[in-house]
Amino acid sequence: MEKRIIECVPNFSEGRDPVRIDRIVEAFRAKEGVKLLDYSSDYDHNRMVITVAGRPPALGAAVLDAIGIAIELIDLNTHSGVHPRMGAVDVVPFIPLGKCSMDEAIDLAREVAFEAGQRFGLPVFLYEQSASAPHRVNLADVRRGGFEGLDEKLKLPLWAPDFGPSRKHPTAGAVAVGARSPLVAYNVNLDTDRIDVARAIARRVRYSSGGLRFCKAMGVELKTRGATQVSMNMTDYSRTSLYQAFELVKLEARRYGVAVAGSEIIGLVPMEAIADVAGYYLGLEDFSLRQVLEARLWE
Amino acid sequence: MEKRIIECVPNFSEGRDPVRIDRIVEAFRAKEGVKLLDYSSDYDHNRMVITVAGRPPALGAAVLDAIGIAIELIDLNTHSGVHPRMGAVDVVPFIPLGKCSMDEAIDLAREVAFEAGQRFGLPVFLYEQSASAPHRVNLADVRRGGFEGLDEKLKLPLWAPDFGPSRKHPTAGAVAVGARSPLVAYNVNLDTDRIDVARAIARRVRYSSGGLRFCKAMGVELKTRGATQVSMNMTDYSRTSLYQAFELVKLEARRYGVAVAGSEIIGLVPMEAIADVAGYYLGLEDFSLRQVLEARLWE
Repeated sequence: MEKRIIECVPNFSEGRDPVRIDRIVEAFRAKEGVKLLDYSSDYDHNRMVITVAGRPPALGAAVLDAIGIAIELIDLNTHSGVHPRMGAVDVVPFIPLGKCSMDEAIDLAREVAFEAGQRFGLPVFLYEQSASAPHRVNLADVRRGGFEGLDEKLKLPLWAPDFGPSRKHPTAGAVAVGARSPLVAYNVNLDTDRIDVARAIARRVRYSSGGLRFCKAMGVELKTRGATQVSMNMTDYSRTSLYQAFELVKLEARRYGVAVAGSEIIGLVPMEAIADVAGYYLGLEDFSLRQVLEARLWE
Repeated sequence: MEKRIIECVPNFSEGRDPVRIDRIVEAFRAKEGVKLLDYSSDYDHNRMVITVAGRPPALGAAVLDAIGIAIELIDLNTHSGVHPRMGAVDVVPFIPLGKCSMDEAIDLAREVAFEAGQRFGLPVFLYEQSASAPHRVNLADVRRGGFEGLDEKLKLPLWAPDFGPSRKHPTAGAVAVGARSPLVAYNVNLDTDRIDVARAIARRVRYSSGGLRFCKAMGVELKTRGATQVSMNMTDYSRTSLYQAFELVKLEARRYGVAVAGSEIIGLVPMEAIADVAGYYLGLEDFSLRQVLEARLWE
């Protein structure tokens, strides 16, 4: 892998108009040093998530281009959608990959945040690992009140933006920019249609109700399968591993006489999270990612 | 991945003296067109495995340099170690990667084999995909008798070398050179010092005595640990997976009341072999290598 690669997963408040969607995605196409990995939009959410990766200078420039395009195209005064949002560009997380350190992702987040404030007149909140105060770490807190509540929020000293003006952008609102660990969307499927069982297991496994530190979980129904699922976000797989979540779900399922039918990873997963699982089950001694052939070829 | 890259994993009969180890490894450092990916040595085996990759002309030249250095440094008359060996440079496999064909690896193996015979006076046996006869395909057959048995072996018409003289090199013995598919060197450590148990388990697991199709195995002692090991070569991990070997060793070990202490991968392993293990234990549905973030980055 190239050294110092950073992933970015910006969320834009446009999930309906294919022409606008394409114009925003275009900012990441055919750019030297930037690779568009994935994008998906949702009509009900009226929102688009793009996944790109690249090196710090090129990646930051492409993200700023996309922000500029989105601000021209999106007016939040006429936007509706079920997902909470406070900006045309709602949230821009940077994630260190491979040999890149969190500090490098934090630096890039700060540079992009500063430029977004200067160039586009956007109030910018730094969040997660980049946050300038503890109450700004959690995205849900930063975004609470949404676009509609921004005028009031920005008047509070607690919520002075980190960069940019102290007034909301009239059509684009504000943006949260930050650095965070990679997240893995991981679901364990249960051989039962009892949603109460799936929910009870989720409660036991997740951090918020006493479970694993870096695991968010909820029970969901898979109506087409007649089954249920513990749907999880593993927010720091280097400290809470996928195998721990899997084994804990199995352990709890036993209580209800329910079998685990299998599991699934949604979207992309860093190689380290997979290697960690193999390493656990094989009891591998001293195994490191540096032993993976492909990783070494591209170092 | 670069087109036509070939991997080479030469094995040298020196795993104890750090100065000698470094001098041999040096042949692969800072050479244009050659990338040193890994090296590891083992005291009990008294052996070192180097992994390099590169394009045909540069890679072959570096391998020949390393052979020349090893022949100067290693005298098999005073060598001891638990691993079978017949030469200072014991075996030199070439492995096609990415878009490279097996034919290209075979060509390079033949060139290096010819030069090693000419330049260093080493008897050379071609093996695996490069073998000149069916009885020379299997490395264990080529190496049977070891350094000590070479004088007798080379007198047999069946074992006339493919290149070089028909007498063993007085200190460096002989070498096997060939082309093969990628393999994974995988060892399962047993919590017993009984070598007979390790050997009995190896016999049950390996293809040659009724076990898994693409698994070679032998029992070895780890004297410094007071333990033993089932030392395996997984010769086609896409058809015989590492988890199958691990679970079969555990199953057999139970017979003897012996616990499996863990396992280890020696050298490099393709990402696919690791993903396959994680996929099995988590019961992953529809998991593909395209979901591995780094694989997408390298595409």
